[in-house]
Amino acid sequence: MSLNEGAAPALAPEVAGLAFLLGTWVGEGAGEYPTISPFTYSEEVAFGHVGRPFLTYVQRTVRHDVGLPAHGESGYLRPAPGGRVELMLGHTFGLVELAEGTIDGTRVELTSSIVGRSATAKSVTAIERSIEVDGDVLRYALRMAAVGQPLQHHLRAELHRIR
Amino acid sequence: MSLNEGAAPALAPEVAGLAFLLGTWVGEGAGEYPTISPFTYSEEVAFGHVGRPFLTYVQRTVRHDVGLPAHGESGYLRPAPGGRVELMLGHTFGLVELAEGTIDGTRVELTSSIVGRSATAKSVTAIERSIEVDGDVLRYALRMAAVGQPLQHHLRAELHRIR
Repeated sequence: MSLNEGAAPALAPEVAGLAFLLGTWVGEGAGEYPTISPFTYSEEVAFGHVGRPFLTYVQRTVRHDVGLPAHGESGYLRPAPGGRVELMLGHTFGLVELAEGTIDGTRVELTSSIVGRSATAKSVTAIERSIEVDGDVLRYALRMAAVGQPLQHHLRAELHRIR
Repeated sequence: MSLNEGAAPALAPEVAGLAFLLGTWVGEGAGEYPTISPFTYSEEVAFGHVGRPFLTYVQRTVRHDVGLPAHGESGYLRPAPGGRVELMLGHTFGLVELAEGTIDGTRVELTSSIVGRSATAKSVTAIERSIEVDGDVLRYALRMAAVGQPLQHHLRAELHRIR
């Protein structure tokens, strides 16, 4: 049995409320934090589905100053009872993130319930994400508590749907 | 700046010891656990890289009995000092997994240090993985502690590199 056979599956009804995220998005972002110099980056995000009650998610960035792939994260977004949503992610730099939150129209708000770190990872302890889609524009903001600093603004980006 | 410009980047020297995993692998697996009926599945696994010191990883399965996508997991594998390796994964079913272990030739052994679960996820508490590559054949075994059961055999599969 091939896993690639046949036409694209129908969207599972459970994820209809997240369909506004589907597609590939590219754009630019900016990051800041008290412990580092501000930076800007290009980003590509893809939300997909396989006909089951979750969306696939993969993200990668290229830092403008060094021109190299920087951060990456991938995993799944799935609805939970009561209008809730769950995000399960691995990050390139030794982190896993489990976040839970809400869907309100085309806005998703997520707060980490678990941030797991490998022995070599930076000490990120909390992440909050706001994602909002307006037509073919996706804007997000990410707040982070890390390296002893309280939860605060870290990243902001505006992406455009290219397919 | 496009994130897709140019030729494939050179493999980062830090991941040379994991290069035997690179490629797309397909094959068949079998699962069992005291609390469920045994099952078989088709699987596709892809390890890639973007020229940085980690590998990208994505896996998906199709259950033979129902013919639908079943489990999926994605994230990153990266070397750590002292011949160690770290695996950062999100799973489709509300789980994040951080595992750490060793590389010995073309064999990787990983033990979860953190298994994080959403409010709706099954109570998986530990995962052990053994992955071994022999030429273009990849075999893995996965042991799991879940739903009150002790750590024990759960999955075994044999995959073949198709590109």
